[in-house]
Amino acid sequence: MRVGVFDSGIGGLTVVKSLLEHQLFEEIIYFGDTARVPYGSKDKNTIIRYAIEAVEFFKNFELDLIIVACNTVSAYALSEMQESADCPVIGVVEAGVLATTNAMKNRDANIFIIGTNATITSKAYENGLRSNEFSNLYAKATPLFVPLVEERLFSGEILNATIKHYFSDVTKPDAVILGCTHFPLISDAISEYFGEGTSLIHSGDAIIELLEHRFDFYKTYPTPQLKFFASENPEALRKIAKEWLNV
Amino acid sequence: MRVGVFDSGIGGLTVVKSLLEHQLFEEIIYFGDTARVPYGSKDKNTIIRYAIEAVEFFKNFELDLIIVACNTVSAYALSEMQESADCPVIGVVEAGVLATTNAMKNRDANIFIIGTNATITSKAYENGLRSNEFSNLYAKATPLFVPLVEERLFSGEILNATIKHYFSDVTKPDAVILGCTHFPLISDAISEYFGEGTSLIHSGDAIIELLEHRFDFYKTYPTPQLKFFASENPEALRKIAKEWLNV
Repeated sequence: MRVGVFDSGIGGLTVVKSLLEHQLFEEIIYFGDTARVPYGSKDKNTIIRYAIEAVEFFKNFELDLIIVACNTVSAYALSEMQESADCPVIGVVEAGVLATTNAMKNRDANIFIIGTNATITSKAYENGLRSNEFSNLYAKATPLFVPLVEERLFSGEILNATIKHYFSDVTKPDAVILGCTHFPLISDAISEYFGEGTSLIHSGDAIIELLEHRFDFYKTYPTPQLKFFASENPEALRKIAKEWLNV
Repeated sequence: MRVGVFDSGIGGLTVVKSLLEHQLFEEIIYFGDTARVPYGSKDKNTIIRYAIEAVEFFKNFELDLIIVACNTVSAYALSEMQESADCPVIGVVEAGVLATTNAMKNRDANIFIIGTNATITSKAYENGLRSNEFSNLYAKATPLFVPLVEERLFSGEILNATIKHYFSDVTKPDAVILGCTHFPLISDAISEYFGEGTSLIHSGDAIIELLEHRFDFYKTYPTPQLKFFASENPEALRKIAKEWLNV
């Protein structure tokens, strides 16, 4: 199986990391739209336009599947991408909803969703979770976490002050949905803030659950081929991929 | 006189504010490339391409002057814009260099330059200041200030932690060049950190100095016409302009 992974920037590499750990694909083709990142503050029509351009790009590769690693794109443009593509397209939002549903047996669980402005405004997670009978939901845009991760401030005073800024009015949740691919990189600090009894839902792990739920995998590929593309500065993307993914 | 003001986003409104205070123009046409902001992390060729597109857009208006309010564009694409435009094009970097030169009589003054990654990498301020015989220069990219301003965190714990993060290894300077149009909005906190004896150089004020140095203004216009354009969500830009500029 040959899979394409699409993200607005580098954050989707956290999804690639999970794919590599589970060795589900023979070839992984990553495309980051680094020239136009971030998508999280853009409007719906722009996001859809860029997402369809990504589908067109992937048509060069005869893919078996496209994974949308970007929450913002998954929230706004998944059905448009599915219409344009000649292969299945799955996204991290449906994956996150499934993973939350699997993790929280109690439908009264208190679920806290964080993401970019665009993802939170879309209410995509809330709609998905409500369809699965969850009702105790609270969503909040936490856009500053993105540049903090891009500056590699995965711990320390600025991150802690930012966590306090966003979370101080939040009741301790049973689960936090990390609704942006950047956020797994600060999951330790978020876990520490809320303490034991709060589960974190990570897009990369959630995608694996969705893949195993939806597709049959007859074999694994211990050394998948990796190809990285970026709309700007692909060298920088490849360097970060090397560092994060150890490849 | 009819002037065009170009910025990658909303930050250039701080320059418009200075223009309004000095009533130098009959009509101000602002264009913010909000669909593709931020430029500060993009590469040189992309910045030049976008800047030339802005010049093409301004050709619709028979302008007398274009002011590049974005430091990143001024640092990388000013001469390319000057070649493409049919009117003079001036930028905040040359303005900041002039304003610093006027403010600091002593050429041994200790000058600290802050800006986006792209602006600092360009060394545009340093090259300009060295030509004016300053040599005691220190430049540092402070990219996190941009999203903090966009989140309107003009004071408080996160901003103070970020200031400490960037400035704790910096010797108290005689002047700080606010080399990004977002930074005047956090100038109070920066002033407070360094205390008395440190001057702040603000792009908007610097542009006024450069205009008065370079052009003759025979009259002022108490109620200039304002037009705001954006490559995405112009309504949001107009709303922020109303709020910041009191128009």
